[in-house]
Amino acid sequence: MAVENALCMNGGDGESSYANNSLLQKKVILESRSFLVDTIKDMLKIRIPTCFKVADLGCSSGPNTLLVISEIIDTIHEMCQQTNTESPEFLVLLNDLPENDFNAIFKTLPAFHERLKKDKGDKLGPCFISGTPGSFYGRLFPSQCLHLVHSSYSLHWLSQVPRGVVNNKGNIYIAKSSPPNVFKAYMDQFHTDFSMFLCSRSKEILPGGRMILTFIGRSNVDPNTNCCYDLWELLAKSLLDMVPEGLVKEKDVDSFNLPYYEPCMEEVKAIIEDEGSFNVDRLQMFEFNDPNGDIDNKYQSAQSMANGLRAVTEAMLASHFGETIIDNLFAKFAKHMAEEFCQEMTRYISIVTCMTKK
Amino acid sequence: MAVENALCMNGGDGESSYANNSLLQKKVILESRSFLVDTIKDMLKIRIPTCFKVADLGCSSGPNTLLVISEIIDTIHEMCQQTNTESPEFLVLLNDLPENDFNAIFKTLPAFHERLKKDKGDKLGPCFISGTPGSFYGRLFPSQCLHLVHSSYSLHWLSQVPRGVVNNKGNIYIAKSSPPNVFKAYMDQFHTDFSMFLCSRSKEILPGGRMILTFIGRSNVDPNTNCCYDLWELLAKSLLDMVPEGLVKEKDVDSFNLPYYEPCMEEVKAIIEDEGSFNVDRLQMFEFNDPNGDIDNKYQSAQSMANGLRAVTEAMLASHFGETIIDNLFAKFAKHMAEEFCQEMTRYISIVTCMTKK
Repeated sequence: MAVENALCMNGGDGESSYANNSLLQKKVILESRSFLVDTIKDMLKIRIPTCFKVADLGCSSGPNTLLVISEIIDTIHEMCQQTNTESPEFLVLLNDLPENDFNAIFKTLPAFHERLKKDKGDKLGPCFISGTPGSFYGRLFPSQCLHLVHSSYSLHWLSQVPRGVVNNKGNIYIAKSSPPNVFKAYMDQFHTDFSMFLCSRSKEILPGGRMILTFIGRSNVDPNTNCCYDLWELLAKSLLDMVPEGLVKEKDVDSFNLPYYEPCMEEVKAIIEDEGSFNVDRLQMFEFNDPNGDIDNKYQSAQSMANGLRAVTEAMLASHFGETIIDNLFAKFAKHMAEEFCQEMTRYISIVTCMTKK
Repeated sequence: MAVENALCMNGGDGESSYANNSLLQKKVILESRSFLVDTIKDMLKIRIPTCFKVADLGCSSGPNTLLVISEIIDTIHEMCQQTNTESPEFLVLLNDLPENDFNAIFKTLPAFHERLKKDKGDKLGPCFISGTPGSFYGRLFPSQCLHLVHSSYSLHWLSQVPRGVVNNKGNIYIAKSSPPNVFKAYMDQFHTDFSMFLCSRSKEILPGGRMILTFIGRSNVDPNTNCCYDLWELLAKSLLDMVPEGLVKEKDVDSFNLPYYEPCMEEVKAIIEDEGSFNVDRLQMFEFNDPNGDIDNKYQSAQSMANGLRAVTEAMLASHFGETIIDNLFAKFAKHMAEEFCQEMTRYISIVTCMTKK
């Protein structure tokens, strides 16, 4: 599977679209808001540049895409008002893989600019927004051109399925029944990818520039004690349900593995230090409830969580198993979710890290 | 009609797509190639910057979109090879209105990068490509950030239908039967728009940076002596044919006017001088045959030319008259074209101008 072609959130604004099923990702952005605001205030306390250049990596398309950008503009605008400083120009670079629905984002920009103008008036500098398609596991921007890089809930997606996980039978990610080499293969792939990410960004960010990354993580060093795997195990179970029905081949389940990894804080810290281009200013873990999950309303919650998972995995699953199974698969998944629903299952671990380019 | 929503080339790669009906625009790019190459050689003869920043305005989507960029990279790569200089990085900013099919462009980028790597090897600096949606009759990029701006066959599209052309009954553009105020209204709108274009670019281009613009023009100061109007008159005639058939309302034809203008060289020169930010290095007119036109094969030529016109006007026409008339309209247009086909009709006038930011 070519990850670049298959790893994309569902486009458009239909029922299964990422745009309509990204409440979880919105919650993450709001939860990590203070990291963003504090970082900006700290980095600009001495001097505000004439043009503030920021990249949002893995921007996807939908209501969250411009949420972070709005926060950044709000924070800088407020700083300028308070200190009676002239507003900078803003250069905003939105990045995602080439299959992302950039057209949908671009069509919302005229209204976004209108709103900025209405809310902030003439005091705000012009805001220039571009889309940059490509994998962030490589270079995306010219050398030393960025003040700030932000990425929320994207870096847990790997550049490829790790090599050497052929024996992960019946599973689609690290599971309790996975052989030990599977975990190591996933960990190694994350190490390679995250190092490449840091190295690429280190060339693009100005000295003293900042980077704020948020991604799904696990709370324990031992990957098998983490509750979050349950979602993927239920998805594998739903796929396996379809084998006796003749809708899915067992060998297709065996050969499907997600290009996804949930690191722990210790791993993240070690990789940043190894790579050596950035100083870690803050590294923190936070837990939060899936906003779709509600123990008193299991069936509706299970359906919402199924829709959320579908919006981010449909393209990958369809490219491996074919499009025809998708509706059925997520109906099965929602059913399993509702049956096995527990408070644990709706809790996510996020890792957020703020760093400064040396 | 909101031009920003209705003025876009047909997306995708279907039969009526711009991608499959832009041979004429390709020919223009090839015809004006020497202006581009000479300009680059001249501007870089003293020093090649570490990152060469170029914007292509009105890039559309299709095989032509990256043609100019390829030319630019080829020229600079060759200069570097000849002088044994290290290749710069390239920042390419592709601009069009937000409704343009940027997704289609972005999906072709991985193959474009592959080809560059294959053709040029490691000697070529990395090439970073972004899409910037928005009207070029306003600011698009931060201040003083561009070395070169290019635009081919876009600037004859106005920002809006000129005000005061309500009495242009039975016509959709300046026609032999248009009242005199219609021509003046069109000329004034072009003056306003082109001045705004120059003013916006003058803020974005570095001092000494260049701009190369190519657009449809007319050869005579008197607009009524130009053969090229005939195409629009035939399109108006095709619309009027549908009035007695009950498919189009006469008042809808009367109220439809194209946001389009063919200036003459004298006007272009005067506006650039009036605006004052640029020195005109070259200003030239060239005539060429529509590559779709072939006097020995009138019916096929007429069909190809109808397809070409449809690809660039369908969105506008559909937004005013409704989508249902489009097939029928262009069938009528192709028929008229074939009947009235003459060598004159397939000749286009282009104006190309190269300028330097003061």
